[in-house]
This record gives sequence, structure tokens and C-alpha cells, in this order.
Amino acid sequence: MSKERKNRTTVDIYGQQYVIVGIESTSHMRHVASQVDDKMREMSSLNPSLDTSKLAVLTAVNAVHDYLKLKEEYELLEKELKNLKD
Amino acid sequence: MSKERKNRTTVDIYGQQYVIVGIESTSHMRHVASQVDDKMREMSSLNPSLDTSKLAVLTAVNAVHDYLKLKEEYELLEKELKNLKD
Repeated sequence: MSKERKNRTTVDIYGQQYVIVGIESTSHMRHVASQVDDKMREMSSLNPSLDTSKLAVLTAVNAVHDYLKLKEEYELLEKELKNLKD
Repeated sequence: MSKERKNRTTVDIYGQQYVIVGIESTSHMRHVASQVDDKMREMSSLNPSLDTSKLAVLTAVNAVHDYLKLKEEYELLEKELKNLKD
């Protein structure tokens, strides 16, 4: 059994409750949930005909896109740092 | 009207087709879609009772969490780089 302490919190995303469990603080989990809620509402206002499932998939697509772009920038910064240290 | 050239591609995520439009290359869009598809399938194997909509929301939650953690690391790296340059 893991000794790592897990936190549990209930969040509301797009009118539905979810129990989130993780090693992060509950405030971090709530912040993440509120960002997903915001993004889904934004996506819904742009595409009013989409159902919740498609809205959530497209929100996930946007989030993964943002992640991959940031990862590229992170790797550039890492390279720059390495060059400065060498 | 925007002069920026937009690309359009159809992707398959968790058995459903989506038309994705953006300035990114179609290969980037397909890569993002395949990551979301993988994450939804992984989430589904861990939580077989969840419906598609909840799976997609939790996938979005994980993606936003990953983004925020990477952003923290990015900001640390930026700070380190700034200190080295000063």
C-alpha cells in the first residue's frame, strides 16, 4: 500500500460533480477543475450545438495542444540554459 | 477576414469523428488527437464504469493539470536563465 498521502475533493465541472483524488493540494485540484469548467463554457459559447461529451473532448484537445506547445518552448529554454552553462 | 491560412482535418477520438480547424499543421492536429484518444482509453481502462462524457472531462482535467505543472517548471527555468544572464 502506498504511504503517499492522497487528497480527495469534489468539484463541479459543467454542472456535473466529480470526485478528484490525487497527491496535489485540494486548492490545486479546484483550480484545475475551474479552468476546465471555464474552457468548456467558452467552447460551448463558440459551438452551441455541441453536446457535453464533444465539448469535453474538444476541451481536452485544446489542453493537450497547449501542453505540447509549451513543451516545445520548455525544450528550447532548456537548450538555451545548457548552452549558457557549458 | 483573416488572411492566416487555416488547416482542416478529420480525426477519430474514442470512436467519434471530429473536424479540427487551426493554423497548426494537420500532422500536429493528428498527433494531439491521438494523444487525447490514448488518454481516454487509458482513463477508461482504469474506470470502466465511466460514460464517454465523464471520461472526456477527466481527460481534460488531467491535461490541464499536466499543463499547469509544466508551466510551473517553465517559470522556474525562466527564472534560472534570467539569473544566469544578469
